[in-house]
Amino acid sequence: MSTQPAHPTLLIPGPIEFDDAVLQSMSHYAESHVAPGFVKVFGETLSMTRKLFQSTNPAAQPFVISGSGTLGWDFVASNLVEKGENALVLHSGYFADSFASCLETYGANATQLKAPIGERPSFEAIEQALKEKPYKIITITHVDTSTGVLSDIKTVAEIVRRVSPQTLVVVDGVCSVGCEEIAFDEWDLDVVLTASQKAIGCPPGLSIIMFSGRAIETFKSRKTPPSSYYSSMANWLPIMQNYENFKPSYFATPSTQLIHALHTTLSQITSRPMAERFAAHRRASDRVKAAVAELGLQQLASKVENQAHAMTAIWLPDGLAPPDVLPGLLKRGVIFAAGLHKEVATKYIRFGHMGVSIMDPARDDIEKAIAALKEAIADAKRAKGL
Amino acid sequence: MSTQPAHPTLLIPGPIEFDDAVLQSMSHYAESHVAPGFVKVFGETLSMTRKLFQSTNPAAQPFVISGSGTLGWDFVASNLVEKGENALVLHSGYFADSFASCLETYGANATQLKAPIGERPSFEAIEQALKEKPYKIITITHVDTSTGVLSDIKTVAEIVRRVSPQTLVVVDGVCSVGCEEIAFDEWDLDVVLTASQKAIGCPPGLSIIMFSGRAIETFKSRKTPPSSYYSSMANWLPIMQNYENFKPSYFATPSTQLIHALHTTLSQITSRPMAERFAAHRRASDRVKAAVAELGLQQLASKVENQAHAMTAIWLPDGLAPPDVLPGLLKRGVIFAAGLHKEVATKYIRFGHMGVSIMDPARDDIEKAIAALKEAIADAKRAKGL
Repeated sequence: MSTQPAHPTLLIPGPIEFDDAVLQSMSHYAESHVAPGFVKVFGETLSMTRKLFQSTNPAAQPFVISGSGTLGWDFVASNLVEKGENALVLHSGYFADSFASCLETYGANATQLKAPIGERPSFEAIEQALKEKPYKIITITHVDTSTGVLSDIKTVAEIVRRVSPQTLVVVDGVCSVGCEEIAFDEWDLDVVLTASQKAIGCPPGLSIIMFSGRAIETFKSRKTPPSSYYSSMANWLPIMQNYENFKPSYFATPSTQLIHALHTTLSQITSRPMAERFAAHRRASDRVKAAVAELGLQQLASKVENQAHAMTAIWLPDGLAPPDVLPGLLKRGVIFAAGLHKEVATKYIRFGHMGVSIMDPARDDIEKAIAALKEAIADAKRAKGL
Repeated sequence: MSTQPAHPTLLIPGPIEFDDAVLQSMSHYAESHVAPGFVKVFGETLSMTRKLFQSTNPAAQPFVISGSGTLGWDFVASNLVEKGENALVLHSGYFADSFASCLETYGANATQLKAPIGERPSFEAIEQALKEKPYKIITITHVDTSTGVLSDIKTVAEIVRRVSPQTLVVVDGVCSVGCEEIAFDEWDLDVVLTASQKAIGCPPGLSIIMFSGRAIETFKSRKTPPSSYYSSMANWLPIMQNYENFKPSYFATPSTQLIHALHTTLSQITSRPMAERFAAHRRASDRVKAAVAELGLQQLASKVENQAHAMTAIWLPDGLAPPDVLPGLLKRGVIFAAGLHKEVATKYIRFGHMGVSIMDPARDDIEKAIAALKEAIADAKRAKGL
């Protein structure tokens, strides 16, 4: 039995439901951020972060910093791009617009390669764009939370290495790390940034970033100093290296309770092969997608190969909007999210299926949500006379 | 009886001991950051933040953002200062060096007005400096955590308004908000920034910032866009205004559990007049200072008027260093901090006395710590043959 009070099941694309032990770690008693007990917990957390990314290359470096996932964009833009350098932003939904805006804030020339809603830029278009001018970085949203579109980061990385080998491959993995396959070393990625509250299953408040040795060297050879203070790798690199070597270090006070919670969830995640976890999320996603099709509904991500396994963005039947359906879901104990992509926000809903809702055999969250969705859509249609 | 497991009492200058109810709020079950329940909690938290600063002026605006206290410096530097503008940084310890470094990262010309260790710049020197050139902002560390020096922000603000009325008065209140007197409106301050984990008594991970109407107008009349993305007021202002009006809003996912904990502690703090809280911290501080004097020890802050009530930085007897004394304190169930000011770090220790250790009548933390300090110093002297 869960130790949590009864509450509706949160099945949005993050935050997600939390494991009891993770939530209990959140109420850890007060500790000094430089005392041996906490230093050990933080150091182990950083080592487990490497496993999360399936990385064993010691030149790669994980960062765990207090802040929202959004902070990861600042970390990339202010450390890896200098004023006037080019960034190619692959657009598969809302989040590319925001990442481009962040890059421009720090002086980058951001070029967006846009796909129609529910699609992703083609490999041909990416290759063509890379040939047109030299790009310092290319950014890819692994799973765009606004559309449920999955990008093929492995293939994009291969194209980059073949066509423009110096370009750094930056993955926004906020809605993918912990449930979609990522092989950081093997796929030769340079940055993956994420947040604590999605498939990793830790409450929100930590920005988690993995840098390759190549990305760190790029930072070290900058001609100008980094253009942010809080996000400066110069400030954080020694801190992370010290903690992972179990030495206390101070730049800013870490979120001690959140680090305990991250330690707990990463201990659970890394106790089993990551491949098992990815497969479980694929199976659950297949079940959700099949149920959506059985209801006669379509996904924003129209092609099987670009459908995320973390979440499903579902077009509502004509004549229905999120406020017609979400209350019916809540009445049945399930919370989905409304649309987020500005152009079509009133026409779709989002169903997140990540973390303990998938991995904990004691939970029946997904079956309950599928049944609730079926009933809530039927109720809404009846109420509207559809 | 506390619901927390037995643990040594944390009496460093933050994080501090937490109230049971605050820690229980940290393990709140998963919620959507845009659902009505959470929106209400966040909105009320922002309203209570105004009370914490004793502010009723609706033109002032509180911000609560995921990040360490350090992030508050970026928020000031990237929103209020444009490239080439002057900042006067009053130096009363380590933290002014870092704030100046942050300001310079964003293009400010930072001039530090330095005092000897344990002192603060004189009012005459501040007035003189303000007359020498136009300063966009002046920064003051209310309590410098490295030295225990208290600044007189009320008098400094008066000097600024008389000599250089357009200069924005920026207070680093990381180690003061919630225990040292601050009257935001009455003293005509422009910014006070702080963090959750000190006298406010919430676990670390939230940057809390109060801006005056004047500071917001200064931001709005910038000639160039703000030079940070994550810290841009343009991104956060509508979010904070919406939440306080109980409307959901999205720029970055808030730390939902930390916001619950902040709500709990601010509910406790604002249920009583702030003056009572300040007086209780003054009494406790007087008791600590008297005990330190009885032990024949000196404080870094040598004059009564510049001694903080939040903490005490204590010179160790000649021949003793922090590693000689801190283990003896830990053996007696008390944790103090080592020195932090680089030049003299090995010669002193720091004793934090804030929050529930002062306000909860069921606790005897301060008396226990004073007794432990006396014994630990005596033991250390004996071991060294002093």
